[in-house]
Amino acid sequence: MTSLKSPDEPRFSVHYRVTVNGSSDIENLARDITIEQTAEAPIDCIPDRLFREGIIGRVESIIAVEGEAYAHDVVISYRCDLTGYTVPQLLNVVYGNISLKNNIKVIDLDFPGAFLDRFSGPSHGIDGIRKMLGVFGRPLACMPLKPMGLSIAELSSMAGALARGGVDLIKDDHGIGNQRFHPFRERVSHCQEAVYKENARSGRATMYCPMVSGGFDEIEDQVRHAVKEGVRGILIAPMLVGLDTVRYISTTYGIIIIGHPSLTGTFFSNQEHGMTPAVLLGTLFRLIGADISIFPGAGGRFFFTKKECGDLSRALLAPLGSIKRSFPCPAGGLSIEKMGDLAPEYGVETVFLIGGSLLRQSRDVSGSTELFMDRIRSLYAP
Amino acid sequence: MTSLKSPDEPRFSVHYRVTVNGSSDIENLARDITIEQTAEAPIDCIPDRLFREGIIGRVESIIAVEGEAYAHDVVISYRCDLTGYTVPQLLNVVYGNISLKNNIKVIDLDFPGAFLDRFSGPSHGIDGIRKMLGVFGRPLACMPLKPMGLSIAELSSMAGALARGGVDLIKDDHGIGNQRFHPFRERVSHCQEAVYKENARSGRATMYCPMVSGGFDEIEDQVRHAVKEGVRGILIAPMLVGLDTVRYISTTYGIIIIGHPSLTGTFFSNQEHGMTPAVLLGTLFRLIGADISIFPGAGGRFFFTKKECGDLSRALLAPLGSIKRSFPCPAGGLSIEKMGDLAPEYGVETVFLIGGSLLRQSRDVSGSTELFMDRIRSLYAP
Repeated sequence: MTSLKSPDEPRFSVHYRVTVNGSSDIENLARDITIEQTAEAPIDCIPDRLFREGIIGRVESIIAVEGEAYAHDVVISYRCDLTGYTVPQLLNVVYGNISLKNNIKVIDLDFPGAFLDRFSGPSHGIDGIRKMLGVFGRPLACMPLKPMGLSIAELSSMAGALARGGVDLIKDDHGIGNQRFHPFRERVSHCQEAVYKENARSGRATMYCPMVSGGFDEIEDQVRHAVKEGVRGILIAPMLVGLDTVRYISTTYGIIIIGHPSLTGTFFSNQEHGMTPAVLLGTLFRLIGADISIFPGAGGRFFFTKKECGDLSRALLAPLGSIKRSFPCPAGGLSIEKMGDLAPEYGVETVFLIGGSLLRQSRDVSGSTELFMDRIRSLYAP
Repeated sequence: MTSLKSPDEPRFSVHYRVTVNGSSDIENLARDITIEQTAEAPIDCIPDRLFREGIIGRVESIIAVEGEAYAHDVVISYRCDLTGYTVPQLLNVVYGNISLKNNIKVIDLDFPGAFLDRFSGPSHGIDGIRKMLGVFGRPLACMPLKPMGLSIAELSSMAGALARGGVDLIKDDHGIGNQRFHPFRERVSHCQEAVYKENARSGRATMYCPMVSGGFDEIEDQVRHAVKEGVRGILIAPMLVGLDTVRYISTTYGIIIIGHPSLTGTFFSNQEHGMTPAVLLGTLFRLIGADISIFPGAGGRFFFTKKECGDLSRALLAPLGSIKRSFPCPAGGLSIEKMGDLAPEYGVETVFLIGGSLLRQSRDVSGSTELFMDRIRSLYAP
């Protein structure tokens, strides 16, 4: 008979912001979470042993949030081995069932080293990417291939033009998948070749990162094809393909992972429920291997606040066991004009992603790219 | 050079409920969605050709919602082949980037036959499951193995007791994964054996459906092990493992899929943003192969309304091309006492899932199960 024992098993903590509404009291709400996320049974039906052995979540602290009438910060710890050290089961324990309740927001995650050691995080991280590109002392520049629906010849010609303009990273628009009018394999081969040729001429190391969004049984073939063609990084949306799919690809192929936030928005749209961008696009995406995390910059056409963007950047850059640091990448409506405002907020360890506004600036893609690169260099000149 | 052409390519429609706030007008908001979800570029930078060829989303209709000052039903159509007929890219087109905006709720999906023909849906559906169980004319009964943390001997003994009591379906609690204190392979073998023995005695066909939540590189091994042991259905949470992972498993192994709503809650917690339960847990989960879709029944410890539950049930049962019907399975705080109220709401094509309240009723698991089965039979006696 398997023994549970191990009451000393290491624990990780989840910081929940719990807003009390109506007649419930915070102590009961906190206790409900500890049970909902573990035994999920009426408290009087749970064997005492499970409490003694630490299987049930534990309320570590409850602190009323200053200046708010109903909000409390509730820290709950769980035994690390409840997650089986897998990403799906980690998500399950942190927020699976209570996502279906109300007024519970995950605002921080606190993992012990023993937990973090089971995950690899980004294969390259900030320092690795800088070495691969040979770019130091300034933010990186990223530009998209777009729009969806161009022919492969048009897309690869644009890739060449962006590389000629000197951009560091070129990524597919996240909607460019394996559609029959620009199928993945042919498109990636041509775009990568176009960038490769420009690099051979310029001596630069511009990287082309195709969007990978294939189904369960085709995604690995897509990655293999890209790697065979010389691709060293991909764009991938963890919420579309499954978070653990990203961890697997990062760990197995050791390529740069640019995480895209597609389909994550409902976690952020309710201030009192969900997760903060810092938790999902920051700590969790970094844990599963995102070397770069794209998010909607404040003041663009999405709704993240400056504070949310700042917290998210810090989550990507802060110490996290031996896991490498990831680049924050604000996007979604940035322009060359706005970069002056952004520079002091983000500092050097940032990837600036500009797309549509540069397309608008000029039909001369290489010329626009050069403008973008000049602007970055001038903002961060020593 | 690849040609786009095909302006006659079939299109599917998404019904968005868009709430206008502030100074924006509904025509602009609708048009923004058509572009954000496809070309994602300033409108004046998009080649005319992409509009002519139907690559850009099209506003089909905008209707003000009666009795609401700011809400509109906006129907937008997209070319089917934008999705590449893959689940990740379908999610991307329907709601990827606009999930990061506000006040846009997906309330319906309308697929043409040419699209639906590319998906298999449930392997068995309602009729197939009834034949496998030999149960007709009443709802099915499902009970969980719980709580997480029991030994394998305790769990398999409970599985045997539930089967002895005559329940139709036994599922793991969704938190029971591949933890070292009840590892997947050993646990599934023992629980399946216990149920098999009882079936051999009773002549019934009670099915044990283990929770499958392994990572990308272990989940298929888990399914293979379960199938080898005689398991004919699994519990799986699409949002934890990736929606396309579920489609792949359903299509490849032809087993019954019980869909669990873990981590889906943020799609529902904001009335003006996200998706309705009918869209996500109904149409989409059915499309990816859920034979049974578990959801929080109204009046339990979660917050779904009666209307949401009714709409969700209808989405699982309504015609959907040649895709089979799925069982709605209300759960999350049901009890034998409440069943009388639920019966008229759900009708015969339902799975009732009762867990905690039966555990509380008695330590005699088989006896409680018999009570549950008697209650179902009496409520639906001809």
